[in-house]
Amino acid sequence: MMAIDGARLIEDLRELAGFGSFGTGVDRPAFSDADMAARRWVCDRLADAGLDAAIDNVGNVLGRTDAHQAVLIGSHTDSVPKGGWLDGALGVVYGIEIARAVRAAGIADGAGATGVDVISFQEEEGAFLPLMGSRAFCGEVSGAEFDAASNADGHGLRQAIADWGLDGNPPARVDAKRHTAYLEAHIEQGPRLEAAGLKIGVVTGLVGIRRFRIACAGQADHAGTTPMDMRRDAGAALVRLATALLDMFEAEAAPETVWNIGQVTFRPGAFNVVPEAAELLVEFRDTSPDRLVRLGDSLAAVVAAADGASNVAVTAVDAGGIAPAQLDQRLQAAITAAAADCGAPSVALQSGAGHDAMVLSKHVPAAMMFIPSIGGRSHHVAENTSDEDIVLGCRVLARTVESLIAAS
Amino acid sequence: MMAIDGARLIEDLRELAGFGSFGTGVDRPAFSDADMAARRWVCDRLADAGLDAAIDNVGNVLGRTDAHQAVLIGSHTDSVPKGGWLDGALGVVYGIEIARAVRAAGIADGAGATGVDVISFQEEEGAFLPLMGSRAFCGEVSGAEFDAASNADGHGLRQAIADWGLDGNPPARVDAKRHTAYLEAHIEQGPRLEAAGLKIGVVTGLVGIRRFRIACAGQADHAGTTPMDMRRDAGAALVRLATALLDMFEAEAAPETVWNIGQVTFRPGAFNVVPEAAELLVEFRDTSPDRLVRLGDSLAAVVAAADGASNVAVTAVDAGGIAPAQLDQRLQAAITAAAADCGAPSVALQSGAGHDAMVLSKHVPAAMMFIPSIGGRSHHVAENTSDEDIVLGCRVLARTVESLIAAS
Repeated sequence: MMAIDGARLIEDLRELAGFGSFGTGVDRPAFSDADMAARRWVCDRLADAGLDAAIDNVGNVLGRTDAHQAVLIGSHTDSVPKGGWLDGALGVVYGIEIARAVRAAGIADGAGATGVDVISFQEEEGAFLPLMGSRAFCGEVSGAEFDAASNADGHGLRQAIADWGLDGNPPARVDAKRHTAYLEAHIEQGPRLEAAGLKIGVVTGLVGIRRFRIACAGQADHAGTTPMDMRRDAGAALVRLATALLDMFEAEAAPETVWNIGQVTFRPGAFNVVPEAAELLVEFRDTSPDRLVRLGDSLAAVVAAADGASNVAVTAVDAGGIAPAQLDQRLQAAITAAAADCGAPSVALQSGAGHDAMVLSKHVPAAMMFIPSIGGRSHHVAENTSDEDIVLGCRVLARTVESLIAAS
Repeated sequence: MMAIDGARLIEDLRELAGFGSFGTGVDRPAFSDADMAARRWVCDRLADAGLDAAIDNVGNVLGRTDAHQAVLIGSHTDSVPKGGWLDGALGVVYGIEIARAVRAAGIADGAGATGVDVISFQEEEGAFLPLMGSRAFCGEVSGAEFDAASNADGHGLRQAIADWGLDGNPPARVDAKRHTAYLEAHIEQGPRLEAAGLKIGVVTGLVGIRRFRIACAGQADHAGTTPMDMRRDAGAALVRLATALLDMFEAEAAPETVWNIGQVTFRPGAFNVVPEAAELLVEFRDTSPDRLVRLGDSLAAVVAAADGASNVAVTAVDAGGIAPAQLDQRLQAAITAAAADCGAPSVALQSGAGHDAMVLSKHVPAAMMFIPSIGGRSHHVAENTSDEDIVLGCRVLARTVESLIAAS
């Protein structure tokens, strides 16, 4: 097998975590100083690994092998604000280490061979426009989307690109003839592997997401002087509606479906004022497109049943969504076999979060591999994985790449 | 009957509303420039009515008749921020007009007679310390309470008193030998009189209030990657708890009981994060001390049943309360008879809000009379009552005073 240098791998991850370090995590939103310094560091490491490396016109860092074809390995190096050190970074540093290992093994030499390209996508986390880097890499972002996107400070995406002098750079693009596969390793960001004592998750697909903003409109009244039967209590209506939604999901969801009422707000929000307005944010996720549709219909039925009861108007607004993605079965089999080769117990599971692989899977055969998250934590400085599990994951991914190159 | 000058009454109310006018309402929190200007105006009107009038050491304005005993008429002239023009002001201006009418009728002349004292309490609304003026008038405010009270700007109550040079003024005090009755007229602040086509509410008692802050503590997790059965979802726990509370109140409340879940907050509050913390504010009101205790016990039982379910800790903190107050039955009968004398249809009802009468009722026989609120609105610039209803209310209260003086 190709030789993975575990100490070097961990050292690289720690060095990368130094850019924008925040406690035990990182604060490295897309196009921040820390993010761009990290990208230059990644670019240098890719060049050291013998790849032709450059930052493209949206901030993606691509290192290209001189082989004729390539397995593309990558993820992203931007983070959520005050996030963890492994989310995204892990998949990029795995790519760097595997590119070095492939080169050292000499298995991708020659113009007709298959090598390894490595990419760090920009702006996966959505400071401006989620999955922007991978979507741009796949030619999916329109000029209008670029024009409209801005971050929480009101800074435009186009301006951020111009600020860093990137707009003249050549774009990097996926190439279905060149890229025989896209492999993305990532921390699980959930508790399942750890709870089951497993080391590798072979991802079958990425869930689709549907989001709704549900609002109740009533009337503010004095909560002492207004009899109960004369109120138009938006808060009570929302509480009962939210319970009905939870009941609906429990009754109709599949075992893997997840849902969340993530936010509830009341206005004006005082002990002694009947709420005039109340709102909730709800999302649900499933890999089945049909089930996403059916659950959306059931949500609409719950809202329709609540609308007008107690003289409170209830409306649901679609707050966007993402279609589910299925990953390549041949690549899943290759990861499963590689895990067995490395003695790493594995399981097939779905990804409950979005990833760049979601975008890539529409253009090239794509796969994802998870390693355990301690306590299932992520998007938080407490995010972590043991060094041992990190190194084992890299060995499994390297073994997968080796088998794909051998079969090419 | 004594003669009430309806035009003069309305003119006085409009003039008073000019102090701190805000749209169609007033913005006149205790000790603001507008509030103190209004108090000086009230003091002048009381002097014009032949009373010995002064502002006391906490901002209360008291006008004293030279008769031996007095029916005390009053309310407050401070307002909530951006409030209505009648809340409090009505009861004070009724007092001014009735003092003038009593003087004009010559029915309280002579050292042994019963006359009318008029008071505008300071700080009923709680910018610093709710009901401060009436509590100070009754000797109920401790030095420690004065020391601790401050407003939303962090300005201390003692400092506010000193800023206006009041601290050297003689205190005004209730006198059970002098004050044979306390009468407070007020807008209903609710929709019942208007809805029933009635003009006068004879208040039987003021509800007591109990308030609780109920908190659910779970764990923040990624709402996509954390399976439903591994979550500690504080939001879902709060939603189900809130529904259980609403069900409990509906099952156990008396017809006149009112309750309100006025505020719900989730943390961190995003589509894709399982809430780690969720909180609600709930209050309930009833005139029965026993029922207040029983409902509190039932609330505690609902909380105890929820605590620990789904690995979410639930706690309830008592956020304070007010004991209910019963009003004097002889005075209620006098108001009911006076309404009949004036041809004003009346009904006995409870007050769902707190008033200065709540404090006075512990020291002297006290009564309250409500007039209709248009649309039930109050604590809002839209607060209003027709001129006709305002004048009729004053006639009923004057007739009540006349009967009390005649019986003294």
